[in-house]
Amino acid sequence: MTINAYGATAGDVPLEPMTIIRREPGAHDVVIDIAYCGVCHSDLHQVRGEWGGTLYPCIPGHEIVGYVRAVGNDVTGFHVGETVGVGCMVGSCQKCPSCQEGLENYCTGTGFVGTYNGKTDDAPGHTLGGYSQSIVVDDKFVLKVTHPADQLAAVAPLLCAGITTYSPLKHWQGGPGRKIGIVGIGGLGHMGIKIAHALGAHVVAFTTSESKRADALALGADEVVISRDADQMAAHAGSFDMILDTVAASHDLDAFSGLLKRGGTLVLVGVPEHLHPSPNVANLIFQRRAIAGSLIGGVAETQEMLDFCAEHGVVADIEMIRAQDIDDAYDRMQRSDVKYRFVIDNATLGVGA
Amino acid sequence: MTINAYGATAGDVPLEPMTIIRREPGAHDVVIDIAYCGVCHSDLHQVRGEWGGTLYPCIPGHEIVGYVRAVGNDVTGFHVGETVGVGCMVGSCQKCPSCQEGLENYCTGTGFVGTYNGKTDDAPGHTLGGYSQSIVVDDKFVLKVTHPADQLAAVAPLLCAGITTYSPLKHWQGGPGRKIGIVGIGGLGHMGIKIAHALGAHVVAFTTSESKRADALALGADEVVISRDADQMAAHAGSFDMILDTVAASHDLDAFSGLLKRGGTLVLVGVPEHLHPSPNVANLIFQRRAIAGSLIGGVAETQEMLDFCAEHGVVADIEMIRAQDIDDAYDRMQRSDVKYRFVIDNATLGVGA
Repeated sequence: MTINAYGATAGDVPLEPMTIIRREPGAHDVVIDIAYCGVCHSDLHQVRGEWGGTLYPCIPGHEIVGYVRAVGNDVTGFHVGETVGVGCMVGSCQKCPSCQEGLENYCTGTGFVGTYNGKTDDAPGHTLGGYSQSIVVDDKFVLKVTHPADQLAAVAPLLCAGITTYSPLKHWQGGPGRKIGIVGIGGLGHMGIKIAHALGAHVVAFTTSESKRADALALGADEVVISRDADQMAAHAGSFDMILDTVAASHDLDAFSGLLKRGGTLVLVGVPEHLHPSPNVANLIFQRRAIAGSLIGGVAETQEMLDFCAEHGVVADIEMIRAQDIDDAYDRMQRSDVKYRFVIDNATLGVGA
Repeated sequence: MTINAYGATAGDVPLEPMTIIRREPGAHDVVIDIAYCGVCHSDLHQVRGEWGGTLYPCIPGHEIVGYVRAVGNDVTGFHVGETVGVGCMVGSCQKCPSCQEGLENYCTGTGFVGTYNGKTDDAPGHTLGGYSQSIVVDDKFVLKVTHPADQLAAVAPLLCAGITTYSPLKHWQGGPGRKIGIVGIGGLGHMGIKIAHALGAHVVAFTTSESKRADALALGADEVVISRDADQMAAHAGSFDMILDTVAASHDLDAFSGLLKRGGTLVLVGVPEHLHPSPNVANLIFQRRAIAGSLIGGVAETQEMLDFCAEHGVVADIEMIRAQDIDDAYDRMQRSDVKYRFVIDNATLGVGA
């Protein structure tokens, strides 16, 4: 199957239209016509080669929603025409303890196979993502989307930004009676606020920018704290059960660890380009606090998240773009000039490609 | 009550004999004749003013064992002649959530009152520790010692080194079926090995020194890893449920966080003089690992630890010293030249004081 896609042939050139080949579906494969694909910061880092190890041509995109066009002979869980999603993974070893527990995101056998830049026998030897007209995915890694049809584009970012925040919020009990902080109000953070609010937690949004206060409240925050204001920060000392820190840029973690209750956890979901300043160990020791990390979620948990979000009417706040505008979108994303996630209308891949 | 003690009048002078006054016992007080007092690294830091904030005269010592000489009118839990211990705390607010839950060590009201250098109405306005002939302590902070009488000196270090390792080992489930690492084989680490072994865990001791291998095995380690040997370290990648890091000196945490299983925790119990190199966040994120801190334990847990150690025959490996030799002992302690804890024979305080 030759299809249109949008990607790059090297790290220092713009993305451009290209054609790629999808494999013929096997017995367990689901062929998906991609309707929309969210634009994640990881896409930018990967396609521009900023993490090293990028395989070209690189077709980013791991926040995929669309419709089932065909299913393999042994696929029983999906039917043609069904609305589905694909997130950051399209495979894993299926044998290691993590896979056996449904935590394919922490696969220790082969590591999970990324939706792009992952290892595959398909041409060209690495996986190609959702900036494309269609994708062929093992049914174990296909999710059901039950949101209303007119919300489909806004569902796409749930597949990465949604699960990246939902999983730690569930793991560290971000529900009723719990005071939860969300640091950063961007693609991840705005989902964190919405999901923590939907889970029933008392949600405090942290931002460096007074201009985001009204937006954070509208997203579902109960309180907003300007993290540069020492008095506002001090007023919350020792009060949080968990703080979900979505800011990948290097920053001071002590300001947040000191706001945790005894036994509270500061959860990081972004790897900074440069190390954070070394955290103050006394902040951890004197109240048995922890700094932890969390990475997306397993397939079952991603489905749970989608169902939860459908039930609670949670979707991302998005700005729709054409595939042709992706480089501009990247530039705006780097300036945090997006509320709060770009989503590609994949129908534009059929135009002038 | 005027008694003999050993302490310092400033940070830059040796410890010397001095006399101090203990308060007349109140209704809830227990008067304890101190038989032995363990020598903790904290003693050295505090008395030499290395942490700042040291109040002089400073009488260190918070690993205290001895016998009840008298009890106040309202003391029902202790009787004259009973063998008892006092650890790092002699008071706390008793009202905050931590105190209400029996975690006085994490008191957020006033903070716990340290056994020395803590705030008190007694002369000289700060608490004076166990390098002294006797101490008067609120019965809420007195522990029962049920070890055989001939082990009493070796019980003393349990009051700080023991509980500092027992509490995190219990909190992070260091029991049967769990693989637990202990980093550093010193005063804390040797207790960590003994207690983790007694709890039924599979214990791996990490040391930089091949010379400590036989000792670590004798202490109860199932395996010993030389942490400077990359191959030995790599053989344990991703295999630990919890690693208890007792090394307070600044060191690389990534070498240990990478050995944790998914969801594992690296627990720090020492505050380094200089920050550790900033930990690699990816090590945390990619397997949902955590770096946490832990501080001694609550009163109830300290009693539980003493009872557990009595039941399992666990005591510290000690070297007994005279009070007069404390400065030499500090010097040797700084060179790690002790197996594994100095304990002062407090009877020597009556000699030539």
